[in-house]
Amino acid sequence: MTTSGGPGSTMEELALFYEEVRRNHGAALWNTEMANTTPDVVPYIWKWADFKPLMYQAARIVPMEHTERRVLVFSNPGLEGKGRPAATTTLLANLQIINPGEIAKTHRHAASALRLVVEGQGAYTAVNGERSFMDPGDFITTPNGTWHGHGNEGDVPMIWIDGLDVPLVSTLQAAYQERYTQDQQEITRPDDMSLRLYGNASLRPTWETHRGMHSPIINYKFEQTYEALTRLAQDTDGSPHDGVCLEYTNPVTGGSAMATMACFAQLLRPGKPTTAHRHTGGTIYHVTKGKGHSIIDGKRFNWDEKDTFVVPSWAYHEHEADVESVLFVYNDTPVIEKLGLYREEALEENNGHQEIAGVFEPVPVEA
Amino acid sequence: MTTSGGPGSTMEELALFYEEVRRNHGAALWNTEMANTTPDVVPYIWKWADFKPLMYQAARIVPMEHTERRVLVFSNPGLEGKGRPAATTTLLANLQIINPGEIAKTHRHAASALRLVVEGQGAYTAVNGERSFMDPGDFITTPNGTWHGHGNEGDVPMIWIDGLDVPLVSTLQAAYQERYTQDQQEITRPDDMSLRLYGNASLRPTWETHRGMHSPIINYKFEQTYEALTRLAQDTDGSPHDGVCLEYTNPVTGGSAMATMACFAQLLRPGKPTTAHRHTGGTIYHVTKGKGHSIIDGKRFNWDEKDTFVVPSWAYHEHEADVESVLFVYNDTPVIEKLGLYREEALEENNGHQEIAGVFEPVPVEA
Amino acid sequence: MTTSGGPGSTMEELALFYEEVRRNHGAALWNTEMANTTPDVVPYIWKWADFKPLMYQAARIVPMEHTERRVLVFSNPGLEGKGRPAATTTLLANLQIINPGEIAKTHRHAASALRLVVEGQGAYTAVNGERSFMDPGDFITTPNGTWHGHGNEGDVPMIWIDGLDVPLVSTLQAAYQERYTQDQQEITRPDDMSLRLYGNASLRPTWETHRGMHSPIINYKFEQTYEALTRLAQDTDGSPHDGVCLEYTNPVTGGSAMATMACFAQLLRPGKPTTAHRHTGGTIYHVTKGKGHSIIDGKRFNWDEKDTFVVPSWAYHEHEADVESVLFVYNDTPVIEKLGLYREEALEENNGHQEIAGVFEPVPVEA
Amino acid sequence: MTTSGGPGSTMEELALFYEEVRRNHGAALWNTEMANTTPDVVPYIWKWADFKPLMYQAARIVPMEHTERRVLVFSNPGLEGKGRPAATTTLLANLQIINPGEIAKTHRHAASALRLVVEGQGAYTAVNGERSFMDPGDFITTPNGTWHGHGNEGDVPMIWIDGLDVPLVSTLQAAYQERYTQDQQEITRPDDMSLRLYGNASLRPTWETHRGMHSPIINYKFEQTYEALTRLAQDTDGSPHDGVCLEYTNPVTGGSAMATMACFAQLLRPGKPTTAHRHTGGTIYHVTKGKGHSIIDGKRFNWDEKDTFVVPSWAYHEHEADVESVLFVYNDTPVIEKLGLYREEALEENNGHQEIAGVFEPVPVEA
Repeated sequence: MTTSGGPGSTMEELALFYEEVRRNHGAALWNTEMANTTPDVVPYIWKWADFKPLMYQAARIVPMEHTERRVLVFSNPGLEGKGRPAATTTLLANLQIINPGEIAKTHRHAASALRLVVEGQGAYTAVNGERSFMDPGDFITTPNGTWHGHGNEGDVPMIWIDGLDVPLVSTLQAAYQERYTQDQQEITRPDDMSLRLYGNASLRPTWETHRGMHSPIINYKFEQTYEALTRLAQDTDGSPHDGVCLEYTNPVTGGSAMATMACFAQLLRPGKPTTAHRHTGGTIYHVTKGKGHSIIDGKRFNWDEKDTFVVPSWAYHEHEADVESVLFVYNDTPVIEKLGLYREEALEENNGHQEIAGVFEPVPVEA
Repeated sequence: MTTSGGPGSTMEELALFYEEVRRNHGAALWNTEMANTTPDVVPYIWKWADFKPLMYQAARIVPMEHTERRVLVFSNPGLEGKGRPAATTTLLANLQIINPGEIAKTHRHAASALRLVVEGQGAYTAVNGERSFMDPGDFITTPNGTWHGHGNEGDVPMIWIDGLDVPLVSTLQAAYQERYTQDQQEITRPDDMSLRLYGNASLRPTWETHRGMHSPIINYKFEQTYEALTRLAQDTDGSPHDGVCLEYTNPVTGGSAMATMACFAQLLRPGKPTTAHRHTGGTIYHVTKGKGHSIIDGKRFNWDEKDTFVVPSWAYHEHEADVESVLFVYNDTPVIEKLGLYREEALEENNGHQEIAGVFEPVPVEA
Repeated sequence: MTTSGGPGSTMEELALFYEEVRRNHGAALWNTEMANTTPDVVPYIWKWADFKPLMYQAARIVPMEHTERRVLVFSNPGLEGKGRPAATTTLLANLQIINPGEIAKTHRHAASALRLVVEGQGAYTAVNGERSFMDPGDFITTPNGTWHGHGNEGDVPMIWIDGLDVPLVSTLQAAYQERYTQDQQEITRPDDMSLRLYGNASLRPTWETHRGMHSPIINYKFEQTYEALTRLAQDTDGSPHDGVCLEYTNPVTGGSAMATMACFAQLLRPGKPTTAHRHTGGTIYHVTKGKGHSIIDGKRFNWDEKDTFVVPSWAYHEHEADVESVLFVYNDTPVIEKLGLYREEALEENNGHQEIAGVFEPVPVEA
Repeated sequence: MTTSGGPGSTMEELALFYEEVRRNHGAALWNTEMANTTPDVVPYIWKWADFKPLMYQAARIVPMEHTERRVLVFSNPGLEGKGRPAATTTLLANLQIINPGEIAKTHRHAASALRLVVEGQGAYTAVNGERSFMDPGDFITTPNGTWHGHGNEGDVPMIWIDGLDVPLVSTLQAAYQERYTQDQQEITRPDDMSLRLYGNASLRPTWETHRGMHSPIINYKFEQTYEALTRLAQDTDGSPHDGVCLEYTNPVTGGSAMATMACFAQLLRPGKPTTAHRHTGGTIYHVTKGKGHSIIDGKRFNWDEKDTFVVPSWAYHEHEADVESVLFVYNDTPVIEKLGLYREEALEENNGHQEIAGVFEPVPVEA
């Protein structure tokens, strides 16, 4: 902003002043953009067609013993060069692969994590001594501070999306990570016990005492979710902006599945495009099933099954499916809401549809 | 971590793999430090003796019309080169100066702000149409979304500490900023009306309806705070770690003064050193009154009146006053707690006192 | 208590004093039992064998036009002569019958009500414009302030238990009752829409906004409840005091189904007697299915299918089933807990089993 | 209601039916007024002029050893003959007197109690080992479950109003009462420590952990309350219905002073009559200071200093002071609100003023 000083000051004085401020670990606000509202995060889509071969290649060439988890991180181009790779400023969206016979050792950390199974079968997640075997479309929670690990007892690799709040926890400087005393924690409860206890609609087991800000359910099975979505779609179009969109909730409180992340299953049907809105809170979408496109801040993003895309905070977005589609969606709105920072706005013009300025084409990073 | 691949892979294959991941805006987790617990924020102290001349110089050479606010930002050395200057990863600690006759125009933003008056008199803060004139030691709130401005009707400049959650709001990509339609908002309530309504201990005005996650009180006067601190000190030593430490609360909920920042007044007395503890949540201390030192992560920081220092998240800290001292303290613990990330640990060894590895000496930034 | 006065006073003076107090609408506390802890409510069982013929007789001889609802009230013997008949000091347990072709007109009131279907089919409850057809064992909510009515479109009468908080609302002097402008409210939503929206386990429809302190679900179907109970019984014995006991919850909050009443389905299995405990909060049990007995304050109450019994506040109770049994249970614990009055105590002696002092035999009211 | 039966039934059959229902401890709802909205509680005023001599007489003729507490209960005429005497269906309003040198032994109970000092000095209340000496107008809390007793170390008797939720706790059958092991509990904290800790406006002592649904403050001193009322009255008329009315709050939560009772200090000024409204929740008023009248359900009640009157739930009421007056007010609205039963209505007609049907004259109970 200002470079010339007040009356009586010279350019030289000002330069010396700035130098002196800097030497003392200060900065002049008026030379800094403090309240910059331009989001760094850009809308982006990671194509399954690009990442599938890389994942299977990683499964082949990167041995488990060389890595805590065999994971590729989706790196938002808007954040590249500004710290560690991440999908948004608060959230990670990663792909993880585990080969038959492998285990991912038990650990715990301050970050909360979720999994959405992309393909494969026969692998499990274990949380605090309880296993759940996973199928495509299943949504699995491994919340803040819980011991968790994975194992693949099947015949094929399994791949899933890892959603984590690592950038947020890191910004809050609240991170820690611990290895369990053994590679795998002892299994102390029947498989899927938490689901049997808490997975009965609006029926709470009175003898159980679940604590914490997260759901007691480890695995929300896709079969039940999909059945609920399609049954509801017979009666309702749901939300104008989100279609038939169900939030995975913590049955003990009715709140979000984890303290920092809200998670959703969203059914879109051909011939029923949604209208655009925008809100605070960056959001990640994974195409569990189907094919279609989204318009994000005026640009069209075509999506196929197993693609993953990101809608930045305060970016207008609307969706249209070519065939019946299910999106898995997660964002940091629980944080935004608890801090009084939630804002939302529907697009009024043009019947709620954005003007389309172009179709997204990935720009590969230069060699 | 790994550079060599699994059986059958070659270094060349691995290199090509990494290149292909990078081209698709991906990153290999095992080449990335994701759960890094090393705090970037370092303990630091900004000496009033260094900044006082700079503030008065700024008041002289930087005209108001060249800046939204005449503010110097305390820049944590650990964060320099990693984005905008800030005291911690979530909070700003700044110095602001306003000359007699000047106004700082009315605006509002998603960030919450607080002021702690350092010196001067005759200046006011106006929030949503109500003014409060400020005296040294006063704690003033200008919460998220409230219209606010300042003016100096006295004969001398006024300087205050500005505390803001700008880095947090920016990370959450929830920022916005708006100018009021005029330079100054109309005054529609008697001065200090909020304090008269809500400043009576445990007596709530039944005809008022205060909404929002923040205190309705604009100005917590130092005179009352200091009187409460010294009166309590006759009966109690308070907390072993914090001395006689009072939290400024929202009288409507009993909670923190603002949704994202907890604020405290802490009385330390000579001969009563505190013992060390550490907790998640980076904390800023301003020496309202007195003289003493703090040991932060084993290093001694000597402080004088009007100095400002920072204790990073999870750093052990303990305090000792040479004369009766009052510290104004603020941190992001409301955020940490709402997200289930609060942890605390008292130092057990050596009767709760750290071994001192040295005395802090500022290292000026090189020219 | 005292009848003789202090030094210098005479019996005559005291008598005149009491008379003068009484004349001025006062009372001497020391002549009054103010903190009487003896519960007035007594344990009691109303046998279906006694009430079934009365209900069908009522259906025959009492025309709907002569009554708002065709209801027999269970009258706790301990409360008879102390105001209106009721099962406990806060709750009603009634039987209602509706003939084929009849309607019970739409009204609303401050009291909350629940239904548990005893026998019949083809009848519905309508709440705020939505109908749900009812089957034996179904639990139906008609909360505080909701318009509701009933109709029987089947070929046989339907009988259900009516649970209401009328005595509590009456004590709080918060009662009102209104007739709808027509006999029946218009049906504006598909049948069972609330169940389809909110009856999917831990999946919240994001486009719906449910307000109020009660569950949005009108009908919790017995089929699902029974399936959940029996499935869970394969893995667990549940609570030592209550067996496999599930609370019907409000999916939006995880709390009780209504603001004033908590409702439960409790599975008891032969060979698995529960142990005794006692707690504040009077509780009503209805035998949805099965046969067994309960020991209440040392007395044995034998129960058969469709019987209804009451356990007073702070009375020890334990249960044993002869065959697999399901009890529907409701009480005022949400009130007790919100006011900080909940206390609970397990019986320690005799392995948690009471000594049995006798078998309950009903004492008919004298002619 | 109905006495004649349906088609085919005879009066004889109906009579036999009713007899059989009654014999089985049942009742026909259509012969019972279940949803009666007529409040039993009537507006009433207990004149200090009548009760002052009785209190001093009681102090003379009723020895402490003959009574747990020397208390006269205000008996609402509408409730006489319907159980124990009480001011409303949920609350007691009593007068208690304690002579110089006497103690009222330490006990605790499920009921919550409050005191409002009427006259005298030199007496104290002790709660959980902390004493507070009381002055006229002081509001003292002895919440649910706290050990408490009284003693008079002065030279004159002290009289106070006792407000208790005994009828409510009794209806909920949650009552218990225990004597302390000794006559007086040991004093373990400095006098008025709770007030010094929590009585600083919006400043919370961080080292204290107060639990429970009640305020940690034992004594809200009248001096501070009156100062706050009169200061506020310079700026505002407060509520149209209540004047300058401050709620005594729990500083830890901002909520009501006790879980079941909300307590208020209300300043009325001559020339500023309030307008009428009605709400659920029966309310007790004590004239701490002043002289005036209230119109309750169309009847005028003239009040003088130290009188006590009751406004039933849902009765219109408005107030007018002849001289500056302070009313101490308490009611059960926290219960009403937690259960979703609060309703309120302002009188629209006649500029919010009721037509006055007469002046209240006490009707002494007949001999």
